[in-house]
Amino acid sequence: MNEEQFIQYLKEQFISPNSIKGIGDDCAVIPRSDGTALLITTDALVEGVHFLKEKISPRDLGYKTVAVNVSDIAAMGGEPVGAFLTIAIPKNTTQKWLKELINGIKEGCKEFNLPLLGGDTVGSKRDLFLNLALIGSAKQDQIKYRDGAKANDLICVTGDLGNSAAGLQVILDNRTEPFFQPFVKAHYRPHIYLKEGQWLASRKEVHSMMDLSDGLDADLKKLLKASICGAVVEISQLPVSETFTEAVIQNKWDPIRLTLSGGEDYALLLTVSKDHFEEMAEAYQNQFSKALYVIGEIIPEKGKLVYNYGGKPYPIKTSSFEHFQIV
Amino acid sequence: MNEEQFIQYLKEQFISPNSIKGIGDDCAVIPRSDGTALLITTDALVEGVHFLKEKISPRDLGYKTVAVNVSDIAAMGGEPVGAFLTIAIPKNTTQKWLKELINGIKEGCKEFNLPLLGGDTVGSKRDLFLNLALIGSAKQDQIKYRDGAKANDLICVTGDLGNSAAGLQVILDNRTEPFFQPFVKAHYRPHIYLKEGQWLASRKEVHSMMDLSDGLDADLKKLLKASICGAVVEISQLPVSETFTEAVIQNKWDPIRLTLSGGEDYALLLTVSKDHFEEMAEAYQNQFSKALYVIGEIIPEKGKLVYNYGGKPYPIKTSSFEHFQIV
Repeated sequence: MNEEQFIQYLKEQFISPNSIKGIGDDCAVIPRSDGTALLITTDALVEGVHFLKEKISPRDLGYKTVAVNVSDIAAMGGEPVGAFLTIAIPKNTTQKWLKELINGIKEGCKEFNLPLLGGDTVGSKRDLFLNLALIGSAKQDQIKYRDGAKANDLICVTGDLGNSAAGLQVILDNRTEPFFQPFVKAHYRPHIYLKEGQWLASRKEVHSMMDLSDGLDADLKKLLKASICGAVVEISQLPVSETFTEAVIQNKWDPIRLTLSGGEDYALLLTVSKDHFEEMAEAYQNQFSKALYVIGEIIPEKGKLVYNYGGKPYPIKTSSFEHFQIV
Repeated sequence: MNEEQFIQYLKEQFISPNSIKGIGDDCAVIPRSDGTALLITTDALVEGVHFLKEKISPRDLGYKTVAVNVSDIAAMGGEPVGAFLTIAIPKNTTQKWLKELINGIKEGCKEFNLPLLGGDTVGSKRDLFLNLALIGSAKQDQIKYRDGAKANDLICVTGDLGNSAAGLQVILDNRTEPFFQPFVKAHYRPHIYLKEGQWLASRKEVHSMMDLSDGLDADLKKLLKASICGAVVEISQLPVSETFTEAVIQNKWDPIRLTLSGGEDYALLLTVSKDHFEEMAEAYQNQFSKALYVIGEIIPEKGKLVYNYGGKPYPIKTSSFEHFQIV
């Protein structure tokens, strides 16, 4: 049983009330009588799995813990309201390290105007474990889900792909040259598209949205499954930074793997009505001084995902990160 | 830095908005415009710290994870609305074990009429981590806090003390005789005073309330600190079961340690106006067919905690469980 199968198993075991959108989207959505809804998301970072204590600074770890959770609220178009931190602390943790972790969490909370309202502090035998639960709020009729994609929708992303995965590669390879630092930053301090997500959620042309945490290939498959449709993706259209292209050539990195399966991009993935796309993209450009990148199109065929290169099918073998495997 | 000092440090670092009661109580309370409030609590259980995988059955572990969180909602008089489970799964976990854990969580959710609405499933290098975040709801003017105790209030608990701590002792000593099973049950499947908490919260005579998770001594000290007052506790009035008394005599257990510092009782601790106590206790007895146990009285002296036995001071050395120590 892998993660996807386990989540499917959980879905079958726990039937949510009809009014509540439950397990499977970026956040759970609990509607209120005043037309707003409560969004709730929770994300864990485990030592040795999500981070290496000897590599990441405690400050970056704290910041990232907040950022990746805010990204889930952004993906549904919400506003974060309050955070709840669970931290399991192993015996060998120093005060200095812990205070820097808290400083990073503070920095993240400040950036997203998010109060920390509670949590649980416990001991741990060996590994450090961080969990953040985040409460957010949104107008019910503006929340975007994964299941709204329609045939002929354009598939878009809000930012460059692959930088975070390249950053992880750089960190593991102990490359400390200044040239590589933008990748490290993308990995430790990803840009979170919060304002962008709220703006996009307010547009009727946007039919579905989610954030990219497991890599485009894996995440798009989740969107297609939820929306019961397929997609054609044009690989040459995937947005990457100039530094990324340069580094790929210099270091013989695999750009397909990094952009499609690397993960932790935290750009938003969305599908937009083709008829209204140009007008909306222009308004988006005016609002945020950045582009919406079209990378493909939704097709009606359920579960079909075709990668093209220059318009021609380009068969690729993707492998997404398996969080765990249950024996 | 111990847990209390770390929580104090967190409080100083994260200032909550005025409208929100933040870090420190059983739940955070976010008021809504319709007179209700959202309650949020989160509680973690870590392998090797809160449970031993080779001792507790996965089903009991799942049930307990839900129960101890519901207790925090009960302590403030709320109704649970939705649960969010984070689980970090080590590689050696079997499907059978995990499905039984989920069965236990289902059982707990069913008992408290609580839907599981989301969460996060991740891998773990070595230890299993469970975190439950719970959302609840309550009427704003009926929520009970730790800081409301007044001089001359009677201090009450809703149920027997010491059984859970005795259960832990029994488990660690590998005592399997049927006589000891009620203690094991109290440890793995504590009674949660949810309906009682809601009823008590609706009474104006109740000035403060919390649940007993760290042991009466440690928890009462938290209540006294929050309420800026002191207390006299009459040890002979602490409620214990007949089986407990019998087991204490037979096994030479230390009843003071078990009832005052054992922890995980999950009875409610509350303070009640003396003038209205008798009437309320009678109504409580009629409603729930059980007693409210008076164990002492609030005194004005800040931070003073006196233990009496038969009305005379009885000096005792208590030590509460330290969740962690940061070097």
